[in-house]
Amino acid sequence: MELEQALQAADLLQKKMFAYGMAESALYLDGVTVAPKDTAEGRGVALGILAGESQKLLTDPETGKLLSFLEEHREELDTVRRRQVEVLRREYDQMSRIPPEEYMEYAKLVNDADDVWHRAKETSDFALFCPYLKRLVEFNRKFAGYYDCTKKPYDALLNEYERGMDMERLDRFFAEIREKLTPLIRAVGQAQQVDDSFLHRKYPADAQRRFSDYLMEVMGIDRTHCGIGETEHPFTLNFTNKDVRITTNYDEDNVASSMYSVIHEGGHALYELGVRDDLQYTVLAGGLSMGVHESQSRFYENLIGRSRPFVQAVFPKMQEFFPEQLKDVTAEQMYLAVNRVQPSLIRTEADELTYCLHVMIRYEIEKQLIGGMLEAEEVPEVWNRLYREYLGVEVPDDRNGCLQDSHWSGGSFGYFPSYALGSAYGAQMLHCMEQDLDVWGDVRRGDLSQITAWLRGKIHQYGNLLEPADIVRNACGEFDPAYYTDYLTKKYSEIYGLDR
Amino acid sequence: MELEQALQAADLLQKKMFAYGMAESALYLDGVTVAPKDTAEGRGVALGILAGESQKLLTDPETGKLLSFLEEHREELDTVRRRQVEVLRREYDQMSRIPPEEYMEYAKLVNDADDVWHRAKETSDFALFCPYLKRLVEFNRKFAGYYDCTKKPYDALLNEYERGMDMERLDRFFAEIREKLTPLIRAVGQAQQVDDSFLHRKYPADAQRRFSDYLMEVMGIDRTHCGIGETEHPFTLNFTNKDVRITTNYDEDNVASSMYSVIHEGGHALYELGVRDDLQYTVLAGGLSMGVHESQSRFYENLIGRSRPFVQAVFPKMQEFFPEQLKDVTAEQMYLAVNRVQPSLIRTEADELTYCLHVMIRYEIEKQLIGGMLEAEEVPEVWNRLYREYLGVEVPDDRNGCLQDSHWSGGSFGYFPSYALGSAYGAQMLHCMEQDLDVWGDVRRGDLSQITAWLRGKIHQYGNLLEPADIVRNACGEFDPAYYTDYLTKKYSEIYGLDR
Repeated sequence: MELEQALQAADLLQKKMFAYGMAESALYLDGVTVAPKDTAEGRGVALGILAGESQKLLTDPETGKLLSFLEEHREELDTVRRRQVEVLRREYDQMSRIPPEEYMEYAKLVNDADDVWHRAKETSDFALFCPYLKRLVEFNRKFAGYYDCTKKPYDALLNEYERGMDMERLDRFFAEIREKLTPLIRAVGQAQQVDDSFLHRKYPADAQRRFSDYLMEVMGIDRTHCGIGETEHPFTLNFTNKDVRITTNYDEDNVASSMYSVIHEGGHALYELGVRDDLQYTVLAGGLSMGVHESQSRFYENLIGRSRPFVQAVFPKMQEFFPEQLKDVTAEQMYLAVNRVQPSLIRTEADELTYCLHVMIRYEIEKQLIGGMLEAEEVPEVWNRLYREYLGVEVPDDRNGCLQDSHWSGGSFGYFPSYALGSAYGAQMLHCMEQDLDVWGDVRRGDLSQITAWLRGKIHQYGNLLEPADIVRNACGEFDPAYYTDYLTKKYSEIYGLDR
Repeated sequence: MELEQALQAADLLQKKMFAYGMAESALYLDGVTVAPKDTAEGRGVALGILAGESQKLLTDPETGKLLSFLEEHREELDTVRRRQVEVLRREYDQMSRIPPEEYMEYAKLVNDADDVWHRAKETSDFALFCPYLKRLVEFNRKFAGYYDCTKKPYDALLNEYERGMDMERLDRFFAEIREKLTPLIRAVGQAQQVDDSFLHRKYPADAQRRFSDYLMEVMGIDRTHCGIGETEHPFTLNFTNKDVRITTNYDEDNVASSMYSVIHEGGHALYELGVRDDLQYTVLAGGLSMGVHESQSRFYENLIGRSRPFVQAVFPKMQEFFPEQLKDVTAEQMYLAVNRVQPSLIRTEADELTYCLHVMIRYEIEKQLIGGMLEAEEVPEVWNRLYREYLGVEVPDDRNGCLQDSHWSGGSFGYFPSYALGSAYGAQMLHCMEQDLDVWGDVRRGDLSQITAWLRGKIHQYGNLLEPADIVRNACGEFDPAYYTDYLTKKYSEIYGLDR
């Protein structure tokens, strides 16, 4: 085999993987946006087949030979090619360990589970979903062994979402969060509460749709390459760096809900839109780890979007979209309202300060489920107990409890911690960005272009070219959660007058 | 090889073909509905790869061996299996003759051409589209040879859309249409014109959307298995018999436009929803030929939807959706308006009577393009001349002329005649249905269930199990276009008072 030939074969292999991924994503997107209700079966059959074909492609002995050949010629490869071979090797080894039948069975299970979870959530019927959760846990525990049998199962899963992360680090991370934030939350709870009643007036979906367009414009998102749809749970899906989709959900009784979903998903979208062209159609296209991805989405959502300068910048326009609803409201009142701290039941609607506790609860439960210390049947009970313990709230039913998130029904165990990690990465990135840019002057002028350019230069452009820890280190030095806890302490002490 | 094993392999092969088809359809659907504007490139790459993979699957020598084995055991196979093997054999032989590079190049060309055609149509710039049309014609002429080199190229293409159809039959068919309908159209042109001005009042898209839902309900379309979207050109897409999508386009200045699109596409949808369960995920799932498919869509659109009893049945509800616009209109006026005959420029907006002439013009041009008697550059000139000759209208620009349809940019040559054939099949089917059912009593009561059941029993359920000519013969005897010309003569003589 000639090297040139091998490189062409590697390109074609990656293009095929891209094509299968794009097909699966398109079917998924259709399923959660416009597909009629009772159509999961056909999609399930197709997704099962496509997953099997793409696995077959990756685990083809020819692929193994190709990778070995390229590894032998490692010295002749440039950085991009080397990284491609590394990523492909990891995926090849992992996939080769998963029996094809199991892989296809799992793809079908996830498709069915999503459908069942929707129905279970609607009727708050955990018993309906429980057998699926059980099987999903079993599969993930087994898959963890295929991913990396030298690690504990949950560590192996964590590593899939945030390479290099494990329970030991996360236990320390969450301990620090707990130690620093628990007294803060307690103090906030005793302070005078801010008024956010005007967020819950009637905000018609149509006006909210136009408001979303405005927010995406402020964020500098190129709409010829990024669409917006509506789903129960907002998400971002990237086909290429020229084709990204975000979704949101309009709650007519809460204008902040979709507003911050759009800014959050918009942050994910900017990441994907900022990846270099030369990485497209390869395994290096698309954002890196979940944690780094969340660092971008939560950066825009909270650090920028919930800052006083940002709210002041967009508020006049917001009043134009909702003249009746906001006629007696000031920008400062809006700033306080969108930062109201209130321990609550639903993660996606949680405030910035208590959010991490929602994540911590899920982390504890996942850790035990995958570790085999907890059975699926016991999840509601433990869930409700932890919410009482950490957040002081009573869970009235499973719809507002352990059935609220789509992650487990989607087969994602080990994903949740990345939300908390991302928040912490972001705070540290902001700290460094402030040394380079007039961040708040820009935000006050409603101009996020320099901010996005900074993130693009340090993070977005690289796609999957570097390891998560390296990306974080390059952007803002060795990871230290203190930036995050300091930021929260300062912000919420000011809002709730605790420093006075 | 054991027979049981071979049958399982045939099932898996067909499921894979289904999965590739579903993936391609999902990408297409996304592209024409919700995808942002500048995203064709990524989809093109993915579609090219998927087309190549699905071709590789079908033309795999293993597939050839499997089919030979099953053909040797033909006597042991049931009807369904035999037909599967026949259809697969035809596709295998055809596909095996197309070089993979050509096939992938063509898939990419079609994706690009669609994009270019949209832009060309917008700016009425035929020169922009012309090189693509040229290449599409070249490819189709070449592919025709791969399909069946014993036939003339255009006959081979016609055979793909309506098996058994050829230029000889179509020339006779269109000659008869021309002979019977031309004097009728002339007489109508000299009669008192009906008033349809109220169709062109302002009909807001939102009210039209609710009206579409109502129409689909009247048609008895199960919305848990059939969605509706919005595209420039309405179409129907079937994933399975439990997952069908139709699209429409809302013209706020013409309430009849989307109304009859929805009924037309609803007819296609009912066909797909009516195919037997046991044919799913095989090459026999999905409607048969284009002509038979159009017989169903145009049956609902014209024979039922533009009948006096149907308009009378839906009109009271229509007035509820559009109270201001229709307050001074009667059901009879509506009936006359939606049947107004007016030679015009746009096929999809043509009346029932002149429609066939639009089709005939396209047939003549395609026949010559593929036959090599006409160059792509000459299309606008010939198009405009034929519109003057047959319809007596002047084409002001190519947007309203030869750039109006998406068929050629989609690579479909030989498709158009099926619209006219379908209309004619439908009229003959109605004639037979009237012997079995109280068709017009049912329609008057707004109950189409018996009508759909009749069509399901005679046509829909069989999917691709029989040949087009057999389906038509089983439903209504030997095909005879006289039923169609008689129907049109009777209907339009009455409307325009020609029999008085």
